[in-house]
Amino acid sequence: MRAAIVNVTGYAGVELARLLLRHPEVQLVQVTGRGSAGQPLVDVFPHLGPSALMIEPELTASADVVFSALPHKASAAIAQAVLASGARFIDISADFRLRDVAVYEQWYQVSHPCPELLAQAVYGLPELYRARIREARLIANPGCYPTSAILALAPVMELIEPDIIVDSKSGVSGAGRTLSLTHHYSEANESCQAYGLAGHRHMPEIAQELATQLKLRLAGDEPPPLALTFVPHLVPMTRGILSTCYARLRRECTLEELRERYRASYGDAPFTRLSEQPPQTKQTWGSNYCLVYPTVDKRTGRLVVVSCLDNLVKGAAGQAIQNMNLMCGLDERAGLAALPVYP
Amino acid sequence: MRAAIVNVTGYAGVELARLLLRHPEVQLVQVTGRGSAGQPLVDVFPHLGPSALMIEPELTASADVVFSALPHKASAAIAQAVLASGARFIDISADFRLRDVAVYEQWYQVSHPCPELLAQAVYGLPELYRARIREARLIANPGCYPTSAILALAPVMELIEPDIIVDSKSGVSGAGRTLSLTHHYSEANESCQAYGLAGHRHMPEIAQELATQLKLRLAGDEPPPLALTFVPHLVPMTRGILSTCYARLRRECTLEELRERYRASYGDAPFTRLSEQPPQTKQTWGSNYCLVYPTVDKRTGRLVVVSCLDNLVKGAAGQAIQNMNLMCGLDERAGLAALPVYP
Amino acid sequence: MRAAIVNVTGYAGVELARLLLRHPEVQLVQVTGRGSAGQPLVDVFPHLGPSALMIEPELTASADVVFSALPHKASAAIAQAVLASGARFIDISADFRLRDVAVYEQWYQVSHPCPELLAQAVYGLPELYRARIREARLIANPGCYPTSAILALAPVMELIEPDIIVDSKSGVSGAGRTLSLTHHYSEANESCQAYGLAGHRHMPEIAQELATQLKLRLAGDEPPPLALTFVPHLVPMTRGILSTCYARLRRECTLEELRERYRASYGDAPFTRLSEQPPQTKQTWGSNYCLVYPTVDKRTGRLVVVSCLDNLVKGAAGQAIQNMNLMCGLDERAGLAALPVYP
Amino acid sequence: MRAAIVNVTGYAGVELARLLLRHPEVQLVQVTGRGSAGQPLVDVFPHLGPSALMIEPELTASADVVFSALPHKASAAIAQAVLASGARFIDISADFRLRDVAVYEQWYQVSHPCPELLAQAVYGLPELYRARIREARLIANPGCYPTSAILALAPVMELIEPDIIVDSKSGVSGAGRTLSLTHHYSEANESCQAYGLAGHRHMPEIAQELATQLKLRLAGDEPPPLALTFVPHLVPMTRGILSTCYARLRRECTLEELRERYRASYGDAPFTRLSEQPPQTKQTWGSNYCLVYPTVDKRTGRLVVVSCLDNLVKGAAGQAIQNMNLMCGLDERAGLAALPVYP
Repeated sequence: MRAAIVNVTGYAGVELARLLLRHPEVQLVQVTGRGSAGQPLVDVFPHLGPSALMIEPELTASADVVFSALPHKASAAIAQAVLASGARFIDISADFRLRDVAVYEQWYQVSHPCPELLAQAVYGLPELYRARIREARLIANPGCYPTSAILALAPVMELIEPDIIVDSKSGVSGAGRTLSLTHHYSEANESCQAYGLAGHRHMPEIAQELATQLKLRLAGDEPPPLALTFVPHLVPMTRGILSTCYARLRRECTLEELRERYRASYGDAPFTRLSEQPPQTKQTWGSNYCLVYPTVDKRTGRLVVVSCLDNLVKGAAGQAIQNMNLMCGLDERAGLAALPVYP
Repeated sequence: MRAAIVNVTGYAGVELARLLLRHPEVQLVQVTGRGSAGQPLVDVFPHLGPSALMIEPELTASADVVFSALPHKASAAIAQAVLASGARFIDISADFRLRDVAVYEQWYQVSHPCPELLAQAVYGLPELYRARIREARLIANPGCYPTSAILALAPVMELIEPDIIVDSKSGVSGAGRTLSLTHHYSEANESCQAYGLAGHRHMPEIAQELATQLKLRLAGDEPPPLALTFVPHLVPMTRGILSTCYARLRRECTLEELRERYRASYGDAPFTRLSEQPPQTKQTWGSNYCLVYPTVDKRTGRLVVVSCLDNLVKGAAGQAIQNMNLMCGLDERAGLAALPVYP
Repeated sequence: MRAAIVNVTGYAGVELARLLLRHPEVQLVQVTGRGSAGQPLVDVFPHLGPSALMIEPELTASADVVFSALPHKASAAIAQAVLASGARFIDISADFRLRDVAVYEQWYQVSHPCPELLAQAVYGLPELYRARIREARLIANPGCYPTSAILALAPVMELIEPDIIVDSKSGVSGAGRTLSLTHHYSEANESCQAYGLAGHRHMPEIAQELATQLKLRLAGDEPPPLALTFVPHLVPMTRGILSTCYARLRRECTLEELRERYRASYGDAPFTRLSEQPPQTKQTWGSNYCLVYPTVDKRTGRLVVVSCLDNLVKGAAGQAIQNMNLMCGLDERAGLAALPVYP
Repeated sequence: MRAAIVNVTGYAGVELARLLLRHPEVQLVQVTGRGSAGQPLVDVFPHLGPSALMIEPELTASADVVFSALPHKASAAIAQAVLASGARFIDISADFRLRDVAVYEQWYQVSHPCPELLAQAVYGLPELYRARIREARLIANPGCYPTSAILALAPVMELIEPDIIVDSKSGVSGAGRTLSLTHHYSEANESCQAYGLAGHRHMPEIAQELATQLKLRLAGDEPPPLALTFVPHLVPMTRGILSTCYARLRRECTLEELRERYRASYGDAPFTRLSEQPPQTKQTWGSNYCLVYPTVDKRTGRLVVVSCLDNLVKGAAGQAIQNMNLMCGLDERAGLAALPVYP
């Protein structure tokens, strides 16, 4: 199978290259990138080792699957052409994640280049939409924070009050490879901060999917509106997201009952796993795993769910490849078998 | 003025030594420590530079102020004798923080060695109890997490629903100098995790003080019971605590109104400051400052307050010295003037 | 093929498990460990994911290859029995690395349990001894520092004065999983130090191999004695070794001539590569690669060679598996294909 | 005393501000900076706390001492005017460090704006030039690497062969506050690399001072030419330099004899200290101390000296203030008393 990566030079793009170059069923036929066009891929990314690929200015190769790691808007702008070429399109950007174009335009402050494609886009979270992903030609690959938050809460949405707090801690690579003072080593190192307090773009994405899950699980009843507060934090490590999610239980549940729900939801998911202990991001480093750990604060009757993953793998490139595997009839785990690198 | 440190060999103890050795009004006359007794202080802690102090097995010197960095229970066990010697006693341990001995015994799983002293102990948070600290002879120096959480929420307790979440992120030095696998470099580095999910001992301390503040501010009305969920996290950095506190507002407030309250509460506090931007732990590194930043999530009407400090200074040794300064009629800032070490 | 790991609970042991559990030709049939015997492997190491393996107190399974990650002396003590069982033995410890038993006993301060096996042990550095490794039944897997230093200097030994300095910088995982104050997070973080200044055990290992290479390359001439100074340093990162090696050139060499020698030496080595730029440890993280970069300080006529690798992979477990692959007639790269995890 | 800082917005500049704002004898009357001109100092650097200072576009205030943290060439360009105003000038840049203008122009690739001032510039290393600094009006503040290397070797120059290797490891703040991919958090974190292999500008500075020391100590004999190789490395920490220096001893020396020389050289230096154990950069963090530790590799007769300091304090701003104290007749330690922040 032939794959191409548009905009390989960001961290999501180069992580796609790292994984696809070792995928047993895939030939990486082209990679593109604006700033570094014309350079050998391995000059820019020596860790990729011997490879003859050059970074091209534009996508020209014919491929079965095209991954786009372009920024939002730019990504949607090429979707039509990629699909017309017969290739499947997996979009790492946010362009096809929000089903309501008005919400998209409000949060991203741009007009959507091709709202007509939204209807066929499938939100690429295999744990929730595996069957639909298998049939899809256009995948909206989920955001890193949303992946962690939605996997933490989806199985219990009808058990909790629709008043939810997601407090997430992310490694610095989530902010990308573009330079900024906030992510300059001496500024970010040995420091912790909240950001996006005025509203982070992953909030409506999380809200959309949790509301969808709630509706599905209520089966007919009109779901109450969701009040979701999402606060991301920057933590001095390169990779990893840990999300701590808080909501009151609507009725008493035993911990075992809760855990059983997660097992039932994720029992056949190869990468999402109920953890026996409070999980650590290190337990997912470099891998496509997501660990989920529900618990109850008995004094307050509050559910607290902790989840973690590697933001560049399950939170971006790995999940994109998982989606590709499903779309193309491959083993869902193909090319993603590596265990987390610990310690 | 003559000061002594009992159990100098933990991180709170040695941070006391670092600060007291440079305090303009203090002579450090004795330091004790079990494991390292008999060794010169500077052999164990070369960063303290030239000093003739030996680590003694037991407190024998006469001092005006004795700081105890002993573990809980062991600390209370020496309180009576220290006070009887005429010295003031500043207890870094938790022994005198909880006013209700039953709560203490439930959370610490030991019997209290001298409950009769609880009545005279003052909770050493100068921002709330400055006047009482000035008169005190026995100080319960607050915990690191409680200092950050209480300073974040005290000024607005009567404005929020008594349903509060405190999500705290701490550097690893908070766990002390005692070896453990969790705090082994290769385990803690490049990882983030929640802990204390079954209940952390700083929870009742935060709850006690927030309830007290609420009662004070309601002035007569019976305050509603507090539902507090506290989840601490371990973050790969040496120093710093960032607490993100969530609670619904009971009525609409403008951000300016909220900020005005914090200004009014902390206007004359030399170390606690309303931040103009979301604060970072790095902005307090090595100093006695606490930064507080309130904001409102408009979509949900939820107050979100972020606070940060250095867990070993304002969260332990620095605050203890601030208490000493107040008790002894010195300038509250004496010996604590250093600005944060940035970057 | 059936493999077993003795003493899986250290970092080299668990890294072997991580890699062997995904090796396409290997079935991991048993893992042992003293302290954690009786526990499921995944309880101690959750990152290893689903696996039914229990940690056993003793090696009992029949295997084709046994990896020992025991400490020195303990490792040699089981060699005889393992070999007698018909299995190949790959020793991660230092017991069979030094060919001169007197040197071993001087540096390790123990008597050697089975000096009679030394003659058949092959030093498992495939870049130098590939053919002999293929025939071996007992492998002395090289130390992490020696791997980096020997690969840096072997190709040019006859070109340099036998007066060599190796200044190495290592991540903290090299010190293992055993607790110590030096490797406690708050002590090791944000700090850099030299250690082993009185003599590090990897020095005689480096010296032995460099002397051997020199002798081979001088082909008959009596090689001059080697004066080697080796100083290891602890650097605040989890994985990685960077060695900077200094020696005067015996005659003028162009950089291109030097590089050509490295290419000739390592042209068919799948994991050791001449780097185009000064290499970074991050470019090898989690992988079996070693990068080598020679340069000349023209002002002094001194050769400076920088090399780097992941101390737990090419410096321990990965190289052990590479040796296994060679011994067992597998593709040298089997199970080691993963590219470095960057960033 | 009135002080001003030109170009406060880099790390050396802001570190000067941190220290001068707490200096007991100094009033900081003006700070300048191009990019941030017109902004309050505390908006750009919140850790500096309350201060009314604005960042000005140009130096206009009259001051007793002017510190320049400008880049090279720009710094020398203002020297004449500052001196003409009657102020003393302490130059953090490299402009007045190299006494030979040709060497300067070769290494910095610019023409020197005022070579006529070189004769009166004093190299501001108090341990070597205290008396001359007291009389100086123009100080060339030493580089960070040179400070560590020269303090490590000066006391023993006549005892060693003039064939020296300095292998230095630096935290990332040494590279400044200007953005670059190399110093982007995700690139620099968890990685170690050598740089400047083609020649680093601090090499001629180290060579000049070591040659001067050698000449002084040989007292009349013509010193042999120095062959110095200097290789700096980037280490993932914010602050700190550790230099490991290698040279053969010209004659046998006992360790005690060597240590006695260091004691004799630095006995009255308030900030440079012979260490009892191999020092760690953490033991100097945030302070003006330099620790020096000589040892001998007995097998090769090679002297190995390890030194460490905080690159922004003793390696830049702290040393500049130490120079100011000497020039202005203050206690050499004024404003620099803070002990290192450990852990």
